[in-house]
Amino acid sequence: MLDENRLFPSDSAARSVAAKLYETVRDLPIISPHGHCDPRWFAEDKAFPNPAALFITPDHYVFRMLYSQGVSLESLGIPQLDGGESADPREVWRIFARHYYLFRGTPTRLWLDYAFEKQFGLKDRLSPQNADSYYDLIAKALETPEFRPRALYEKFNIEVLSTTDTPLDTLEFHKAIKESGWKGRVLPTFRPDSVIDAEYAGFVQNIEKLGQITGEDIGTWKGYLNALRNRRAFFKSMGATATDHGHLTAQTADLDTATAESLYQRILSGHSVPQEQQIFQAQMLTEMAGMSVEDGLTMQLHPGSVRNHNKLVYEKFGRDKGADMPSPTEYVRALRPLLTKYGNDSRLTLILFTLDETSYSRELAPLAGHYPALRLGPPWWFQDSPEGMMRFREQATETAGFYNTVGFNDDTRAFLSIPARHDVARRIDCAFLGRLVAEGSLDEDEAFEVAKDLTVNLARKAYKL
Amino acid sequence: MLDENRLFPSDSAARSVAAKLYETVRDLPIISPHGHCDPRWFAEDKAFPNPAALFITPDHYVFRMLYSQGVSLESLGIPQLDGGESADPREVWRIFARHYYLFRGTPTRLWLDYAFEKQFGLKDRLSPQNADSYYDLIAKALETPEFRPRALYEKFNIEVLSTTDTPLDTLEFHKAIKESGWKGRVLPTFRPDSVIDAEYAGFVQNIEKLGQITGEDIGTWKGYLNALRNRRAFFKSMGATATDHGHLTAQTADLDTATAESLYQRILSGHSVPQEQQIFQAQMLTEMAGMSVEDGLTMQLHPGSVRNHNKLVYEKFGRDKGADMPSPTEYVRALRPLLTKYGNDSRLTLILFTLDETSYSRELAPLAGHYPALRLGPPWWFQDSPEGMMRFREQATETAGFYNTVGFNDDTRAFLSIPARHDVARRIDCAFLGRLVAEGSLDEDEAFEVAKDLTVNLARKAYKL
Amino acid sequence: MLDENRLFPSDSAARSVAAKLYETVRDLPIISPHGHCDPRWFAEDKAFPNPAALFITPDHYVFRMLYSQGVSLESLGIPQLDGGESADPREVWRIFARHYYLFRGTPTRLWLDYAFEKQFGLKDRLSPQNADSYYDLIAKALETPEFRPRALYEKFNIEVLSTTDTPLDTLEFHKAIKESGWKGRVLPTFRPDSVIDAEYAGFVQNIEKLGQITGEDIGTWKGYLNALRNRRAFFKSMGATATDHGHLTAQTADLDTATAESLYQRILSGHSVPQEQQIFQAQMLTEMAGMSVEDGLTMQLHPGSVRNHNKLVYEKFGRDKGADMPSPTEYVRALRPLLTKYGNDSRLTLILFTLDETSYSRELAPLAGHYPALRLGPPWWFQDSPEGMMRFREQATETAGFYNTVGFNDDTRAFLSIPARHDVARRIDCAFLGRLVAEGSLDEDEAFEVAKDLTVNLARKAYKL
Repeated sequence: MLDENRLFPSDSAARSVAAKLYETVRDLPIISPHGHCDPRWFAEDKAFPNPAALFITPDHYVFRMLYSQGVSLESLGIPQLDGGESADPREVWRIFARHYYLFRGTPTRLWLDYAFEKQFGLKDRLSPQNADSYYDLIAKALETPEFRPRALYEKFNIEVLSTTDTPLDTLEFHKAIKESGWKGRVLPTFRPDSVIDAEYAGFVQNIEKLGQITGEDIGTWKGYLNALRNRRAFFKSMGATATDHGHLTAQTADLDTATAESLYQRILSGHSVPQEQQIFQAQMLTEMAGMSVEDGLTMQLHPGSVRNHNKLVYEKFGRDKGADMPSPTEYVRALRPLLTKYGNDSRLTLILFTLDETSYSRELAPLAGHYPALRLGPPWWFQDSPEGMMRFREQATETAGFYNTVGFNDDTRAFLSIPARHDVARRIDCAFLGRLVAEGSLDEDEAFEVAKDLTVNLARKAYKL
Repeated sequence: MLDENRLFPSDSAARSVAAKLYETVRDLPIISPHGHCDPRWFAEDKAFPNPAALFITPDHYVFRMLYSQGVSLESLGIPQLDGGESADPREVWRIFARHYYLFRGTPTRLWLDYAFEKQFGLKDRLSPQNADSYYDLIAKALETPEFRPRALYEKFNIEVLSTTDTPLDTLEFHKAIKESGWKGRVLPTFRPDSVIDAEYAGFVQNIEKLGQITGEDIGTWKGYLNALRNRRAFFKSMGATATDHGHLTAQTADLDTATAESLYQRILSGHSVPQEQQIFQAQMLTEMAGMSVEDGLTMQLHPGSVRNHNKLVYEKFGRDKGADMPSPTEYVRALRPLLTKYGNDSRLTLILFTLDETSYSRELAPLAGHYPALRLGPPWWFQDSPEGMMRFREQATETAGFYNTVGFNDDTRAFLSIPARHDVARRIDCAFLGRLVAEGSLDEDEAFEVAKDLTVNLARKAYKL
Repeated sequence: MLDENRLFPSDSAARSVAAKLYETVRDLPIISPHGHCDPRWFAEDKAFPNPAALFITPDHYVFRMLYSQGVSLESLGIPQLDGGESADPREVWRIFARHYYLFRGTPTRLWLDYAFEKQFGLKDRLSPQNADSYYDLIAKALETPEFRPRALYEKFNIEVLSTTDTPLDTLEFHKAIKESGWKGRVLPTFRPDSVIDAEYAGFVQNIEKLGQITGEDIGTWKGYLNALRNRRAFFKSMGATATDHGHLTAQTADLDTATAESLYQRILSGHSVPQEQQIFQAQMLTEMAGMSVEDGLTMQLHPGSVRNHNKLVYEKFGRDKGADMPSPTEYVRALRPLLTKYGNDSRLTLILFTLDETSYSRELAPLAGHYPALRLGPPWWFQDSPEGMMRFREQATETAGFYNTVGFNDDTRAFLSIPARHDVARRIDCAFLGRLVAEGSLDEDEAFEVAKDLTVNLARKAYKL
């Protein structure tokens, strides 16, 4: 099913260089510095329940496509907020198989085929005809010890895997992993949206909880900042090397302390207006950058997603159900306050992501090609795809170079897709480098070095892993 | 003149797959679900008057390029609003031939060369030297029965051709075609801009005419909506399967009935302000979507064109004279009111177009890859070109897949260009699929299926043809 | 070090056409109608002081990349406003060599390698190991007569080279060149930002100086315009054929004279608000277009750069230190006032540039493909690169054609990079044309003609050289 040379340029000159480069990075360990795996998997090391629960229910890439063609989320077994009845996983799998043709030309298809063949030895394309035999074979495999989370982590040759966690999390599963004696490195990431984004559902209660956990007086601006410092320190003590921030825009601010204090009081009152909430978020990004200068945690910014665009889906199924939509995102003016304060400070590493590809050559590469504190994250979400990755390299490299980028993030909730996703990234990087070599604009010996840097070294350095 | 393998990748591996795919779709019938051919041609079936009137005067792609290089529209015989004297068609043709080099690298050149060679057997490139012999040969051919509109329709292997018509149109020519016994399918499309866009010239008078035609009381909001329903039903009875909407933005609204009623009265008063007119248009898109849910007409939205940008040209020559310009177009927030109301309803098919390619990967593919009611129209106008089509596939497929797109639209006013335009689209789709196969990310047997779907099946389904 | 076929498509069919085309344009003279070389070099014809002063200190492409990776500007010898101590050039060179790997995949690397090999015969890639031998060899060469500015100008086969000069400049160096009897053509360009952009540092004093130089009464709107006319005439008498305008946006205006007069008085008062300053700039672009209609100077517009984004760098090192950032730029609405007034007038040639590539297919090509006065400048600054140039051709050609573009600008402050930059442009144009021929959408004989037009003819015509 899988072509040995997939995703390499079809032109033979570029392809042969790409293939040679790929040989040298294919088996390097996986560095996964950003993603959404559940630490509980590795703490408890239980079997995954069934093929649908492994491949379909947790993966919004999969069910958003099915939904777009009229397949109901109920029929796919997506959990309903009101606890409505669940679907039979075998029936879910059959629906999926009947619609497998929808994924032609998508990265989801590449990830799935890779997992089917490499993890389960399935070499015939999934179809309505073989849906049941696929299901049975995968279900049986999942019962074996080789398919437990820790065994897969090891089989996948993962060197380190970071999760995404709220400051209100006790990190009990990370603690359990650490104490279990298992040698896998599963690290938390400090993602404070719920306690710094005043538009977040339950924001004020979250802050109160933050106060209780840390013993800080969150009734004051200073106490609130200390509470955040306190949790960052705790996360760091549990192995965290990075923070992550998912804001609607990249807006930052640099208010004087008195203004920030008074704004915080307005926010805390629960009667603030949206403009106040937005400037508060903007200020908090700058505060987070300042704390990163202090404690050395690498900072990630993922702006531009209009969350929960589909009201019906949100009300029935909740967050993260494939209905988040990108929007135009500006960086040059938005980041200026933060960069004026910390952009020249090499102690800060701020990794920028985008859902708006127009910013690659226009804003992100010029910014990262100048400010010492900035680096560019890999193509994200809708752009985490062969064409998307290629556009990123084509549009960012000439101004930012390779060394202001940070390697690949799989960013996934679908554990089985991790090796497939890293494989796609490695192939596309080698395809890009292969073309540069074949076109005589990069020396071959340099390409080998860059390929390795893109695969492991840049991620290790940027995320301090 | 025409290369057998034109527009296929030059790399031999991808090219050979592309060529094989193309073999299987080249001769499929033409589905033309959206365009601007004149139904009168087929009702009256008269000869086209002369080569200039066939190739130059009606085609803004042609005369805008000549105008950009200093050729006056008067000298090209573009009709003047004040009835100023017309140009000699042979002289127009000579000017055209002298400037034929300007079209190098443009799709217009591909369309023209195709028509010259395939319809007229002309194999030497048009030049100042052969301008007269070209003119004579074409003029002579136009006098023959083989070059009458109906004969060409049949020769072109057109299965169905939709026109674009205002609700105030009596559809007399469509009626005449139907009653003539000719078997060609020429269908009207309901394009109500002139009666729902309050900024349209003569808007209030148009509404009054609408009332007269339908016998509805357009003095009330309810009567106005009923008048539109009435005309939609009439169009449907005449074969229409779709509506089309050309708005400046994609803005939609969902006002409560009382607010909508009162807004309608303001609009009707003739004293509304631009903001009111814009919110009215936004509301009307949502109303149209609701009526499509009722009557099953597929809905098309073509936003983003700043019409009549060149005041001098507009005042002297009128609308559609090559002076419409694209502008940045936002979809994610703009469509939310409509999508919240109807986006999850599979009875609606809303086909989105754009003149802003940045929206492909950022907004359109994510929206169409989620909402059951949405589909993506093909590259439009300035992007209806080899590079433009390729960018569309590269930027939309990974998130929307192939099956949330709807095949090709020729969208033309130049009848002779129809086979050429469909040929370009088929070649580019095969080139794209050929690359995917050659790069091992799509199986060849699937590519054959997709090629056929893109050529006929998706258009038939989306437009209910 | 340099591959004979670099930057040609790796596919052999397209490559062989590209190579044939390139053969015919490689040795054509260099037309450099826009750039930032110092006329003093050619007036005085002194030796360049040392390798660092030639390749690093004046080239923001070079030091911005080094700075982005934590190399301080002080250590690179970038002059400090407070006159802080300077760096040892050999030490600067060593730092540069140690970080040479950062330029992999960037156009800077292509330019540098070309200069090293073609001008100095250096064929081993620069590295920490050979840094000193590189330095010594280059330093020695710079002492020879062959490396004086005039000798290099001749060796580079430059036909004409335009500089960029403020209206307050006496053009003494241009005068000296003219009077020296040397046959090189070094022409001034009228760049009036400092006297028409009210946000420019020292704007009011600059206007006063303008009054003194011209003897016009700059206290009145009419006198101010006359002063500008006067300086344009002076520049023209010194050989200038063009003006250039670097504004934050492309906004234009067309105020009636009374309003313009009163606005000018507000601006002159020194108490205007930013909105007034912006509308003044907008008005001045239209005034400049009007003067171009009068005096025939070609007009260039370079909008969209957010200047001096990095406050720390600006305060310590001043302007043009690699901290200018692009921003989204709108053209269709912004240019409408100017185009309504002068866009249909073929006496005006207005060349548009952009830092926002999204405008190529959406706005710039449609505008230039219609208005007789408009032409498109080549990819600029961050887009003056192989990928950037290719995107420009791919995105602009289908709507604007080749003949609404104006050939290449090197736009450089780094004299040694001029042949390298023109070579890259020629190669990419041939690569693009080679692909069109190989894909059968352009005839080979036409490609040869277009290649030559893109290399010399279009620039000569657009800039009246």
